[in-house]
Amino acid sequence: MNNQPSYGSTFDRWRAGAGSVWTDYSRHAFVEGLRTGDLPRAAFLHYLIQDYVFLVHFSRAWSLALVKAETLDEMKVCAGTVDALVNHEMDLHVRTCAAQGISEEALFNAEEEVANLAYTRFVLDAGLQGDFLDMMAALAPCVMGYGEIGRRLGADGVAGTAYQDWIDTYAHADYQGLCDTVGAMIDAAVIRRLGSTPERAPRWAQLQARFTKATALEVGFWDMGLRPPA
Amino acid sequence: MNNQPSYGSTFDRWRAGAGSVWTDYSRHAFVEGLRTGDLPRAAFLHYLIQDYVFLVHFSRAWSLALVKAETLDEMKVCAGTVDALVNHEMDLHVRTCAAQGISEEALFNAEEEVANLAYTRFVLDAGLQGDFLDMMAALAPCVMGYGEIGRRLGADGVAGTAYQDWIDTYAHADYQGLCDTVGAMIDAAVIRRLGSTPERAPRWAQLQARFTKATALEVGFWDMGLRPPA
Amino acid sequence: MNNQPSYGSTFDRWRAGAGSVWTDYSRHAFVEGLRTGDLPRAAFLHYLIQDYVFLVHFSRAWSLALVKAETLDEMKVCAGTVDALVNHEMDLHVRTCAAQGISEEALFNAEEEVANLAYTRFVLDAGLQGDFLDMMAALAPCVMGYGEIGRRLGADGVAGTAYQDWIDTYAHADYQGLCDTVGAMIDAAVIRRLGSTPERAPRWAQLQARFTKATALEVGFWDMGLRPPA
Amino acid sequence: MNNQPSYGSTFDRWRAGAGSVWTDYSRHAFVEGLRTGDLPRAAFLHYLIQDYVFLVHFSRAWSLALVKAETLDEMKVCAGTVDALVNHEMDLHVRTCAAQGISEEALFNAEEEVANLAYTRFVLDAGLQGDFLDMMAALAPCVMGYGEIGRRLGADGVAGTAYQDWIDTYAHADYQGLCDTVGAMIDAAVIRRLGSTPERAPRWAQLQARFTKATALEVGFWDMGLRPPA
Repeated sequence: MNNQPSYGSTFDRWRAGAGSVWTDYSRHAFVEGLRTGDLPRAAFLHYLIQDYVFLVHFSRAWSLALVKAETLDEMKVCAGTVDALVNHEMDLHVRTCAAQGISEEALFNAEEEVANLAYTRFVLDAGLQGDFLDMMAALAPCVMGYGEIGRRLGADGVAGTAYQDWIDTYAHADYQGLCDTVGAMIDAAVIRRLGSTPERAPRWAQLQARFTKATALEVGFWDMGLRPPA
Repeated sequence: MNNQPSYGSTFDRWRAGAGSVWTDYSRHAFVEGLRTGDLPRAAFLHYLIQDYVFLVHFSRAWSLALVKAETLDEMKVCAGTVDALVNHEMDLHVRTCAAQGISEEALFNAEEEVANLAYTRFVLDAGLQGDFLDMMAALAPCVMGYGEIGRRLGADGVAGTAYQDWIDTYAHADYQGLCDTVGAMIDAAVIRRLGSTPERAPRWAQLQARFTKATALEVGFWDMGLRPPA
Repeated sequence: MNNQPSYGSTFDRWRAGAGSVWTDYSRHAFVEGLRTGDLPRAAFLHYLIQDYVFLVHFSRAWSLALVKAETLDEMKVCAGTVDALVNHEMDLHVRTCAAQGISEEALFNAEEEVANLAYTRFVLDAGLQGDFLDMMAALAPCVMGYGEIGRRLGADGVAGTAYQDWIDTYAHADYQGLCDTVGAMIDAAVIRRLGSTPERAPRWAQLQARFTKATALEVGFWDMGLRPPA
Repeated sequence: MNNQPSYGSTFDRWRAGAGSVWTDYSRHAFVEGLRTGDLPRAAFLHYLIQDYVFLVHFSRAWSLALVKAETLDEMKVCAGTVDALVNHEMDLHVRTCAAQGISEEALFNAEEEVANLAYTRFVLDAGLQGDFLDMMAALAPCVMGYGEIGRRLGADGVAGTAYQDWIDTYAHADYQGLCDTVGAMIDAAVIRRLGSTPERAPRWAQLQARFTKATALEVGFWDMGLRPPA
């Protein structure tokens, strides 16, 4: 677990607090398959189609975060993240799937699996039930987890893996910069609402629980990726 | 499929539109186990605990429906349903579980399984994304499905089944009356928004899709009930 | 300012924190007119019609609070308050207006004035933007302010005032009990989220600001009541 | 009323349906003061500060629209509009106010007047209560109204008006293009949900009512601009 990137002190605490659930996610067999290139192509495409639908609802969730923002900086980071998701990250999916003859229209209307639906709607409900921090705790595992995985695979990847495009997207300075920006914004949001020793605030346990649950739902998402399509 | 109760013309159409998914739900092995009494007690308790958590979020969803209501009658039916859920239906769960030494506090904090979470958050998101009708299409399968199942098992149940309490709750005139009231309110809500031939409105296919998806998530809920606890 | 009722320590703090804005609200000329009976009947009816529309949206706001609740007690108090609003408090308006030939249908569809709209949508947005506490800070001034005013006018009212019905509604043990219940629930909600010295939490200033703003919007509501209908 | 720009057939219908309320808005004395340059500078600054706060909540509303979007095109237009608001339109306010020694921090924290609060929270509540179309009907008067006013003043403005910067912002091809894009997206959204003769759908009257109410709230906003600051 050395060399984990830091994307801010709040994220570092939440990741540590998630314990083995974080390792189950970031070191999942699916991830190892991306690294070595041994992941079956059908599993990857299955994942990619579901992940496109995931990003649709994840964009909705980041937009809901903007509705809940209370500072200009929070608003700008949320707007920038929605833009990055809708106009950049989803491009990887569109390009890769197009090469397989799958149109963006087909992606948008793909049947959503339960593991996928459970995750995105859990995040959206964090925003309906709670405040901006509740959302951040639910949004962070995906954003930063992919940053950590991308960074590791970018450094340790097996040369010639068929999944280099995927790795490059998340290892890229643009994506790493997004993680840094989001992490710094979360740190400021936490201080603003919970003070300088947030881990002593009564809400801390619940925020950690939301983060850990979202991480567990990421594990379920990789599991889904390994199963043959329903 | 004879003798299905009618809880209003909209529900009748949606149920017919769901086709075999409705049968998978209303004639599920779990339901048959309730009817005959052959359902293992552990499976029933597992289900009941998850169903309590379900009702917590289902109450939240009916409350969100009230937020979205546009007529006094819609508001009153939603308020009455929240009251029935929070102050009556959950009592069955509390009493039954108390007899097994499980406190309401323990029920409220039970770990939610993915099949459960996916369903309730799907319903809540129907309210966040859509309007009152989108919510009704997502809420109807649970309310009326339990009505239909309760009514059938109340008439055809095997004498002496251990699950008579459960059957009685949903076969009871109070619960059947709730289904009638909700069904009539949905009919009026549909006419108000889509006119007198709602099945010709462009939105009809999407409302049917929400209803069918919620029904499929009910099937997943029964499946979960039959699996040993995670 | 002696003899102000206590509806819990959080409310007491928020009321004190609102300073003169609270006095502007609770000692408004409109209130004095209710007490003495000198308030013109037309102003009262104008107010009552707007207040009916207010209660419609206030019920929606309490329902949104239930969506945001995190404990069983919070859920039950919210459900009970919605029921009290929809099934009891609005009855006063319906009865009084019916005696003037104004139907409930007409009340429900009355044109909403800006001072009214601004207040209820501010409360609803507190729920969209924030968490359960943000809503409670925005909901408390109306619930408890009417309790305080009703209690004072019930004790000090001029005999034979034409507005005895109104005074009795809010002076009544039922309404006072609702204030006590809501106040105790808010105290518990605050401790749960901010700890035992909530006034030291970073969020306290913002919660106070929401409470004070809602109180100022109550002042605007009474002002509207005194103006001839638009 | 000749030469009104068309920003799509839905908007054209809604504008016509608003009747004299639209003229009250688009031909308001405040607008005439911008055109001739006779608007007192203090009134303009008062307006600009409130309008900055307006845009904060208007950005939140467009983000909520993205949460409610159902097609990729709807999502992209909403994301683009949020970006235009947060990263471009607000710049005019920031630059102009900076020249008067008013910082963006001061703008963000300016005390919101009731006419301002009523308008933005009405729009946000359209999203909480209704669906994507309910939001569009509430969002359109501001977006397209400013487009129409900017275009007219860009053509008919008095040379040398002190408010040329404001006029140029909304007369600019970028802003006019935004209006066209939003208008075309609304047309598609309407057809998708209400069919090709939307004015015959039962919901049409309510959508028109939301549009007209938002237009009336725009009139109140200009009125506020002409009043000395509270």
